[in-house]
Amino acid sequence: MRRFVVIGQKARGDGDFLLVDIPSTSGRLDSLLSALRACLLVSHGVRRDTVLYLVLLGDPERPRCVRITGSAARYLRPDERSLAVTVQKALRAPAQRGQFGEVRPGIATLDGGLEQVLPELQGSQLFLLEPGAPDIRDSDLSAPDATFLLGDHVGLPDALRSAWLALGARALSVGPVALHTADAITLVANELDRRAAG
Amino acid sequence: MRRFVVIGQKARGDGDFLLVDIPSTSGRLDSLLSALRACLLVSHGVRRDTVLYLVLLGDPERPRCVRITGSAARYLRPDERSLAVTVQKALRAPAQRGQFGEVRPGIATLDGGLEQVLPELQGSQLFLLEPGAPDIRDSDLSAPDATFLLGDHVGLPDALRSAWLALGARALSVGPVALHTADAITLVANELDRRAAG
Repeated sequence: MRRFVVIGQKARGDGDFLLVDIPSTSGRLDSLLSALRACLLVSHGVRRDTVLYLVLLGDPERPRCVRITGSAARYLRPDERSLAVTVQKALRAPAQRGQFGEVRPGIATLDGGLEQVLPELQGSQLFLLEPGAPDIRDSDLSAPDATFLLGDHVGLPDALRSAWLALGARALSVGPVALHTADAITLVANELDRRAAG
Repeated sequence: MRRFVVIGQKARGDGDFLLVDIPSTSGRLDSLLSALRACLLVSHGVRRDTVLYLVLLGDPERPRCVRITGSAARYLRPDERSLAVTVQKALRAPAQRGQFGEVRPGIATLDGGLEQVLPELQGSQLFLLEPGAPDIRDSDLSAPDATFLLGDHVGLPDALRSAWLALGARALSVGPVALHTADAITLVANELDRRAAG
């Protein structure tokens, strides 16, 4: 299984944003939606081997997570507005503390932050994407279950980055230019595709 | 210079689409806007060495082109709606037959299709992105000016593909999985970034 965890440091977790101005009213959820498309959607299909966790930290008192499971998700359209509606509906549904509850097939939410997602990642090889780290092309990606952590446009909180590394995560980079989260995911997925194809 | 040409086979050229339903009313301009972001925007910046041409063939009687020049474009925001507004305004401005006219800094339009763009590509090494072609990682990308042609969700028109190859274009692929146009562009740009960085 391929897993991606994207941290939205400013992203609202209550779904209370305007579809006509997603960047300003949602804490840049547009960046995470772009990552969602890059992560799960390919030409005329869904990556069934991939799970994406969006960790929304805009309200430090009440972090929220959304999990999108490629093998179960239905009717995901690639445009930003459709994805925004999907995520907004998911965030407006009630969620449990620390336990994912499905709000529609393949889409689940929980009340909590990265810590509450960790039980799902037991046994997964953890990676951290950041500029300047060792090149993914030279890295061992052979673990059958791998989880890649990425920040948003403002990067990762220091404490969270340190905690991830303390869990055994290995740092990787995707190239010499600092890119949007979506593009970094595209490059990771491509490298995994190439390894899988031999 | 890096140039990307994206063909939108169904994309409307008159700007007459609804921002609340871009996919259905614009002929999938959302796919081209996603490509625009991937092509020109990086973390907190614009690729100043890149030019993107969107070729909108939705009305066969009246194709339109939009050119976005990284070195001159200002205030490009990465979210789909902002990019849609930018392109919509550009398309609603008057355009000349076969000659780009700037409608705001870095954004120009013309009346016409790929043929009318060709004079801009004189001396550029042409490439065609398509699944199954030789791997970009094994390809010579050393030309100082290179132009990459890509289709949208329905691919490229056969006649246009043949004409491009007849002009000397070399076919390339970016990996074993058929991806969205935006992701293919991300992978090309990354390969060019890596070559440039040595």
